[in-house]
Amino acid sequence: MPEIDIAEVVAEVSAAFQRYEVALNANDVAVLDELFWNNPLTLRYGIGENLYGYAQIAAFRSGRSPAGLARRIKATVITTYGRDMATANTLFERDSAPGKIGRQSQTWMKTPQGWRVVAAHVSLIAAA
Amino acid sequence: MPEIDIAEVVAEVSAAFQRYEVALNANDVAVLDELFWNNPLTLRYGIGENLYGYAQIAAFRSGRSPAGLARRIKATVITTYGRDMATANTLFERDSAPGKIGRQSQTWMKTPQGWRVVAAHVSLIAAA
Repeated sequence: MPEIDIAEVVAEVSAAFQRYEVALNANDVAVLDELFWNNPLTLRYGIGENLYGYAQIAAFRSGRSPAGLARRIKATVITTYGRDMATANTLFERDSAPGKIGRQSQTWMKTPQGWRVVAAHVSLIAAA
Repeated sequence: MPEIDIAEVVAEVSAAFQRYEVALNANDVAVLDELFWNNPLTLRYGIGENLYGYAQIAAFRSGRSPAGLARRIKATVITTYGRDMATANTLFERDSAPGKIGRQSQTWMKTPQGWRVVAAHVSLIAAA
């Protein structure tokens, strides 16, 4: 079984996760694209769309309005499995979505180019 | 970088995924509980709740109504990373949720006891 939460691996993934978060708030499409695995197997279930493959994800990013993307995250859990795989899960709130709580789940893989998201799922539900 | 989609690993995870699917349709709580990693780090964002840790997930399962859980899945993608990690993503439809499309994302890890879900996210959105 993979070793859980090797400290240096957690540090690497936390840095990648934080870089993604900054890019998302700023709608920095170049960084968002960079941080997803450039592969047909990559997928992203978004708040309102189901995207299969890197090309669909990149097309969505480039066409999205940058308005209202800023958010605050909480209850973030980053867990690493061995040296090459990780999950990052977080709740978030947006002023543009009052009364809702967001959930973002990512699975990350370490590639020769760095850590990349291989699968993601984002959804909004009524706040408890 | 982990080797992607080693055939025998894909077969193992596909069997575990299918076992979960059968258990979910039947609300077989014992099998659903078995297939989640028994660890405080395990988490599950459900259609209407955010569950942190195996204990919260098991409590939710045992308290859930078995009505209306049957579903049909489609566009399922199972990807494996090395021999110990995998993602399984699928869309689903339920007669109890007309006009909606479900999305289920799971990250699986191979433990000495077998493959277990370490993180899951399930949500419903309007069908396209």
